Amino acid sequence: MKPSLPKGTRDFGPVEMQRRNYIFDVIKSVYHKYGYLPLETPSMENLSTLTGKYGDEGDQLIFKILNSGDYLAKVDHVELQNKNSKAVLSAISEKALRYDLTVPFARYVVMHQHELVFPFKRYQIQPVWRADRPQKGRYREFYQCDADMIGSHSLMYEAELILMFKEVFEKLNLSVDIKVNNRKVISSLMQFLELTEKFVSVVTIIDKWDKIGQEAVEKELKDLGITNNKIAEIIKFVKLNPNNIQEAILSIHYFASTNEIGIKAIEELTHLNEYLQAVDAFVNNNISIDFTLVRGLNYYTGTIFEVKALNAEMGSICGGGRYDDLTGIFDLPGLSGVGISFGADRIYDVLLAKNLFPSFLNTNSLALFFNFGKKESIFSFQIIQQLRKRNFQVELYPDETKMKKQFQYAEAKNIPFVVLIGESEIAENVAQIKDLRNGEQVKVSIEHIADFLSKFSDNAI
Amino acid sequence: MKPSLPKGTRDFGPVEMQRRNYIFDVIKSVYHKYGYLPLETPSMENLSTLTGKYGDEGDQLIFKILNSGDYLAKVDHVELQNKNSKAVLSAISEKALRYDLTVPFARYVVMHQHELVFPFKRYQIQPVWRADRPQKGRYREFYQCDADMIGSHSLMYEAELILMFKEVFEKLNLSVDIKVNNRKVISSLMQFLELTEKFVSVVTIIDKWDKIGQEAVEKELKDLGITNNKIAEIIKFVKLNPNNIQEAILSIHYFASTNEIGIKAIEELTHLNEYLQAVDAFVNNNISIDFTLVRGLNYYTGTIFEVKALNAEMGSICGGGRYDDLTGIFDLPGLSGVGISFGADRIYDVLLAKNLFPSFLNTNSLALFFNFGKKESIFSFQIIQQLRKRNFQVELYPDETKMKKQFQYAEAKNIPFVVLIGESEIAENVAQIKDLRNGEQVKVSIEHIADFLSKFSDNAI
Repeated sequence: MKPSLPKGTRDFGPVEMQRRNYIFDVIKSVYHKYGYLPLETPSMENLSTLTGKYGDEGDQLIFKILNSGDYLAKVDHVELQNKNSKAVLSAISEKALRYDLTVPFARYVVMHQHELVFPFKRYQIQPVWRADRPQKGRYREFYQCDADMIGSHSLMYEAELILMFKEVFEKLNLSVDIKVNNRKVISSLMQFLELTEKFVSVVTIIDKWDKIGQEAVEKELKDLGITNNKIAEIIKFVKLNPNNIQEAILSIHYFASTNEIGIKAIEELTHLNEYLQAVDAFVNNNISIDFTLVRGLNYYTGTIFEVKALNAEMGSICGGGRYDDLTGIFDLPGLSGVGISFGADRIYDVLLAKNLFPSFLNTNSLALFFNFGKKESIFSFQIIQQLRKRNFQVELYPDETKMKKQFQYAEAKNIPFVVLIGESEIAENVAQIKDLRNGEQVKVSIEHIADFLSKFSDNAI
Repeated sequence: MKPSLPKGTRDFGPVEMQRRNYIFDVIKSVYHKYGYLPLETPSMENLSTLTGKYGDEGDQLIFKILNSGDYLAKVDHVELQNKNSKAVLSAISEKALRYDLTVPFARYVVMHQHELVFPFKRYQIQPVWRADRPQKGRYREFYQCDADMIGSHSLMYEAELILMFKEVFEKLNLSVDIKVNNRKVISSLMQFLELTEKFVSVVTIIDKWDKIGQEAVEKELKDLGITNNKIAEIIKFVKLNPNNIQEAILSIHYFASTNEIGIKAIEELTHLNEYLQAVDAFVNNNISIDFTLVRGLNYYTGTIFEVKALNAEMGSICGGGRYDDLTGIFDLPGLSGVGISFGADRIYDVLLAKNLFPSFLNTNSLALFFNFGKKESIFSFQIIQQLRKRNFQVELYPDETKMKKQFQYAEAKNIPFVVLIGESEIAENVAQIKDLRNGEQVKVSIEHIADFLSKFSDNAI
């Protein structure tokens, strides 16, 4: 039997793990600093918790877990005979793997509403599962790295989340464009143009602009039965390219000031701008306003975020936004939240392509002590254990075998130093230390091995 | 709809997460130091990878994942009509959740055998799932923390794993008893007594000694048809209580030296002892030999480990051992391995009961800046952002609201300091800083807030 992995899943070996942990650690450090605390929810949720939260298509992509034991015993005979997969499902499956981290978060907040202190801020870094068709960059198991605040309408949180994006990518040395929009702006325009009923169709067409171009967008809008005048207004709006939030507010004023939702949009953009201006957030010029940005159309109600890496062949690497009624799905209305999510897999690919992983990620051993037989290896083992007490990461080759094989092991594992202590070295109380990177070999007294190696170890004490 | 969690699963809130991460971080730091590197495998494995690896009972406890789409379409009509859950299973489920970390590790090694450098050492800290009946301390989703070496017979690894147990529990400040045995010892005794065919039954009875006592053990052995002489030999063996490995070897010599497996047992114990003696592993006297220790009867072939917390109402908190043919299940014979596993949930419970979690685990914000209105909050937001640049974990209350409510928020979140900057403080360029733990309030110039707070922050730079 030749073992294999399920489609769309991956093993992460030591090198990938160290790189992934580097990304997660940077994100976590920023989440912590801004007062977001860790939460983990179970991989399984009741199927009823997840069903209906992601649309019909989403429901199809949820991985269902088969009930244990004689799972067919109580299933309706007729439905079985008819092979009615949908009807049988509810009888043979009660649990499913989580599809995202947002619904479990809402479930957690509702279950713990009386113990939690609001505004409640949590971060969550865990895998999610989707029965999507696997393809390049799309997996059936992948990590999400979310931070969400729930229980306040304050735009301060939006400002902070933008600053958190900035800080994470500064720490990762990755140049990005942080796009910001407010969902209310386009709603206001649609009201202004009396196109509210066609909202979803229009936005869906606008969203294709980058792919199909202006002409095709105009044609599709025309096919919707929209007048030329209104199409011209929509095109003018899409082409707005404000340099900052102040300019953005001025550019939408002519329609936004005419209806309630537009006035609210201006108010929210103004507040956000006050916080960001106060801390010179625009200094590095990596925040931009994009009125055509729509993510999770039926979901976000206010501010929307998206982050793209500059000069990279990659879609958005982060997203997020404000949702005014997150826990309404579980009958706890009125709690407004805002959150962000880092796409760890995509960030990984971009950092790798740009060679931005730091060299200190190599956590292989610093030195391999050769094994020259029983007496010698016990002698080396003693020294190794003393070095470990001082936090050196060193190891002994386990068996007495040919030097060549021990050298090969050190080289294959990228261990920079080998330490040779044979019979004559024990007699002299010295060790031969060879630097495999340049071939240089020095003789060091046993007492000074730690001193010698400490120049090359950050952790040693 | 009132949301709930599936039976046997748990949410981990911020406090629990910080404590759990503390345990994981200690374990990881020791794993790293001894050259074990991280690996993660997917939550899902092909059902064929897992089936048959854990015995019939284990197979029942594996969580199966339902195929996506119209999963009943191709199922045999007759089997459906007969409600043959077992026969239908293979047609509607191809994947399952991993049951442990050992089989996925073996699968990984076999799949990557040509790239890996042997001996290969990895650690893996991930959840596993079992459809067990939930009860106190037994969950359907729980973390395993495994370290395994594969590809060498050297007893050095056993010695190192024991030292790793020691170091982890020293760092956690938990007193433990590390029990060691070698599976070959009891095999040798059974050969000596010509009871090899009754091996499993005899060992199962011996294993109940602590629960049922000597008399009942004797009775059950008699019921097996074992002679009084041999029963006396077995009882004598169980009552052996050697103080160290040397004594242990002497005490079994009379039977172990009479057969091959016994001679091998003595040899292995001797080697292990050489390594441990060389580094004074017995100094704190927390390693003991227990010949009756049997874990995973059909699994381990040499050394066996088990760790118990001293003075705690808790079963074993760690286990492990040597398995001579780990990857044989995937047709790659001849690779010997040895590994250990920390029971994080049980360690958590013991540390909590003994109040051994360190106080520094509280990672709430250090200070809450009060919100006295728009102008004041923007002013505070600027200061906060400067403090964050220096790694202070501080936050602003999001809305202008009653002082009482803001105080309550700080208290509920265990934030020790509140910083008050109202109109008059801005005019004076000062802040009032109140220590909520003792009620003391001091007036500090804006420039000196960082200096003041730095006395209470370990992370600030």
